[in-house]
Amino acid sequence: MPQSHLEQEINEQPDVLRRLLSEEAAAVQRFADAIRRFDPTFVCIAARGTSDNAARYAQYALGILARMPVALAAPSIHTLYEAPPNLARALVIGISQSGQGLDVTRVVADARAQGALTISITNDATSPLALAADHHLYLHAGEEISVAATKTYTAELTAVAMLAAALTGSESLAADLRALPEQIGETLALSAGIAAWAERYRYMSRFVTIGRGYNYCTAFEISLKVKELCYVTGDGYSEADFLHGPIAQVEAGFPVFVVAPAGKTLPAMLDFLAKVGERQPEVLVISNDEAAFESARQRMPLPRHLPEWLTPIAAVIPGQVFAMNLAQAKGHPVDRPHGLSKVTITR
Amino acid sequence: MPQSHLEQEINEQPDVLRRLLSEEAAAVQRFADAIRRFDPTFVCIAARGTSDNAARYAQYALGILARMPVALAAPSIHTLYEAPPNLARALVIGISQSGQGLDVTRVVADARAQGALTISITNDATSPLALAADHHLYLHAGEEISVAATKTYTAELTAVAMLAAALTGSESLAADLRALPEQIGETLALSAGIAAWAERYRYMSRFVTIGRGYNYCTAFEISLKVKELCYVTGDGYSEADFLHGPIAQVEAGFPVFVVAPAGKTLPAMLDFLAKVGERQPEVLVISNDEAAFESARQRMPLPRHLPEWLTPIAAVIPGQVFAMNLAQAKGHPVDRPHGLSKVTITR
Repeated sequence: MPQSHLEQEINEQPDVLRRLLSEEAAAVQRFADAIRRFDPTFVCIAARGTSDNAARYAQYALGILARMPVALAAPSIHTLYEAPPNLARALVIGISQSGQGLDVTRVVADARAQGALTISITNDATSPLALAADHHLYLHAGEEISVAATKTYTAELTAVAMLAAALTGSESLAADLRALPEQIGETLALSAGIAAWAERYRYMSRFVTIGRGYNYCTAFEISLKVKELCYVTGDGYSEADFLHGPIAQVEAGFPVFVVAPAGKTLPAMLDFLAKVGERQPEVLVISNDEAAFESARQRMPLPRHLPEWLTPIAAVIPGQVFAMNLAQAKGHPVDRPHGLSKVTITR
Repeated sequence: MPQSHLEQEINEQPDVLRRLLSEEAAAVQRFADAIRRFDPTFVCIAARGTSDNAARYAQYALGILARMPVALAAPSIHTLYEAPPNLARALVIGISQSGQGLDVTRVVADARAQGALTISITNDATSPLALAADHHLYLHAGEEISVAATKTYTAELTAVAMLAAALTGSESLAADLRALPEQIGETLALSAGIAAWAERYRYMSRFVTIGRGYNYCTAFEISLKVKELCYVTGDGYSEADFLHGPIAQVEAGFPVFVVAPAGKTLPAMLDFLAKVGERQPEVLVISNDEAAFESARQRMPLPRHLPEWLTPIAAVIPGQVFAMNLAQAKGHPVDRPHGLSKVTITR
């Protein structure tokens, strides 16, 4: 079987991040200076699909590191209701791989007209979204041919991480970023074993993915990859929200993917593993902590010394690899899932 | 079979809303005055589970009617990371039926200490959350015994709607609210027919619910009720996000619940019904528009003259009634689903 575009794009991720980190370093410093001068009282991010999960990462990265509250825009307020909220004191960021989404572009354009500071993050420097904002952060990911976004997702997360690090001015965060491409390469190597056991899930039709804090986005993004590539039903949850009702669906053998890297959320995730374990589910764990693996049927290991704030960029990778292998086991085309198109333009 | 608490509480909703609208009218006017004096640059809402869906409603009601951008808080930033973002220029609202959630209370307490204006919305005026805020909006819903929240959810939505109407000062919105309890009574009467056909879904194990704009929250809340009462897998989506990948799971006969009342989102929802219809799913529609019912296997009608901004308070009701009937058909206890407790305290 010739290598799929999806597999190639997953494997390109270390190179993509290395290029982004070096090519955009100076631009990101300029954006950070502009943000400090503008002094926004909050951040508003417009995005759809995979890019919306990058926005979820930004809520934690900008919130925790730069102490900036982050709202996720509701684009239909701008497009269908034509009643844009007052964004004049906001930093407004539009994120889209293609930069073609009319609704995301509309939020950025409305905000700019109100006097907000606007930044777009896209993989096409001539797209409508790229041109709509005051500043554009280019992802340098190369063309992404597979419908399922992989390298553009980790590039979007890295772009957000670069902004957060520049806003803090911390040399330690900058050093973390320099080490990232190598750690993503290591994560890919650690994920090679997944191909050997993914077939077990050939007849899986339901699942959930659980994360918290920085990795709330990872739970959502892995769930999206599995859904779009494998046509399976399930969703991503914060462990806190999952305990508020959705846990009722977990019966013996139900597949529960748990994203639990070392860090501030680990104690809560270990409590969750114990609690959900009472229902005897099939547990698949993404972690770099031995305790998290104890009740796991499948272990998806991460590099040992990942800084917590960058774990989402690595932790999605075993999920990408799992989704690709499961789609192959199910006999689904991995580059172009049934009925999906690469660019979705929402009005 | 004696009537369940769940059924009683669903049927109490018109009375609960009537009481809330009359008892809290003066307080809500005072809160609106305080908000105008404070002049927040944005709103931040902290909530979990069902109350998080009330926060989703607030994003649209406050965004469209009062032009206030709304962020949903990430409580773990406050609790696990202990790095609260700067909320000094925000109106911060904590929503919780019980008022016991430690994490929601922590967000409100952190914000108040920073100088934010804070309001809590709870059904227990002596709860920690009620006491943590500058102002408390009491739901007057009476004790809710069933684990699945119903009357406290529609009361939370109504409380948010009262705030939005008071902030605009519009007499027309106030008149809409006065007519609401009667329309909720009418919705209950229109939902009585669901009991006759819910059994068809006895072996349903997967589903999705789709809404947009004001009714994005309704898609989430119906999905939560069906999950917690019926132990089924699926989730709520904006139709825009659903087309970005999750639609891949829809095969012939897959149950798709569509919330599509008359209003600004209806053309987009009709386009969605046509697009998803190509996959020959089983479509269940909640609407008050004949065109939306055309491709529906099941029709869940709403009162004809509902103002769009109040449709979420009515549109959740057929979902509550369906979830209760399906739980009964599956033989599950409706008042106390397996392994759930009424109050979930997240750290």
